[in-house]
Amino acid sequence: MQTILGIDPGIATVGFGIIRADGGKNEFVRCGAILTPAHQRLSVRLQQIYYDTLELIKMFEPDAIAIEELFFNTNLTTGISVAHGRGVVLLAGQEMGIPMYEYTPLQVKQAIAGYGRASKKQMMEMVKRLLNLDSVARPDDASDALALAITHARFSGSLLNIDGGNSVCSTI
Amino acid sequence: MQTILGIDPGIATVGFGIIRADGGKNEFVRCGAILTPAHQRLSVRLQQIYYDTLELIKMFEPDAIAIEELFFNTNLTTGISVAHGRGVVLLAGQEMGIPMYEYTPLQVKQAIAGYGRASKKQMMEMVKRLLNLDSVARPDDASDALALAITHARFSGSLLNIDGGNSVCSTI
Repeated sequence: MQTILGIDPGIATVGFGIIRADGGKNEFVRCGAILTPAHQRLSVRLQQIYYDTLELIKMFEPDAIAIEELFFNTNLTTGISVAHGRGVVLLAGQEMGIPMYEYTPLQVKQAIAGYGRASKKQMMEMVKRLLNLDSVARPDDASDALALAITHARFSGSLLNIDGGNSVCSTI
Repeated sequence: MQTILGIDPGIATVGFGIIRADGGKNEFVRCGAILTPAHQRLSVRLQQIYYDTLELIKMFEPDAIAIEELFFNTNLTTGISVAHGRGVVLLAGQEMGIPMYEYTPLQVKQAIAGYGRASKKQMMEMVKRLLNLDSVARPDDASDALALAITHARFSGSLLNIDGGNSVCSTI
């Protein structure tokens, strides 16, 4: 059995989702989002994300963190601040000695919905179904974070990962 | 008199430069670079940058940090990791309670060389001259960091900044 913390990085909203994975079975533990106010200075928002991530790790003692890999294909200005936020999340994980793994949006979609072009709505429905939730997880970022955690449970439990030398699940 | 720590953010190389500014006079204190090995995991490199920045702050007790504003106009992939690194530098400054100010490359060039199209070589020569150095500061990133520190000395000492409400020198 392993506890997995999924993180959907950001600056205004950092989604998090915790599951317990046992063989092929995934149990929902908690999800939510770290929200930082837009009127605050960037450095203050980063500090809040850093402290809250440390707190999540202390509270749930995850065996692994699954975090989304970052691509800049949409909004560059947003991308810069998201990358700042992702930096302090990685620092928090490193400070607490938790192994971290990154997955692309494509890998997550394939692991959760079975194909890479699944819509956001389909993904949220699948996360709900896979974790036996009463309703879809909110906010979206929390659902995305749960999807990352489930993705890690699948990849880390697969034969591909048995010698630690697979190319799907990379340590960061 | 104020001590200013200039930081040229990065992931492989973080340039730093410390000056003491007294009225229009700038005195060189120290410069150098935090270097992180490319074979290390990103999270380990971020941790090293974080610790080394904290250490610099403890050692030189700056009154202000001047850091380069980040633009993604060249290499996006490099930009992502630089933004990660910049995030943990801002966190370190925030943790230590040091006011931080950001300047664009254009502002730095104008402050140091007097015009925005100055070459890298011209900039390094000007930093050497302004701080009475025997030779240009190395590596380049350290010279850039000193340029940021001098830029802050100029802007923060100017009338523009007298009510803290100027648009040149923004707190982050």
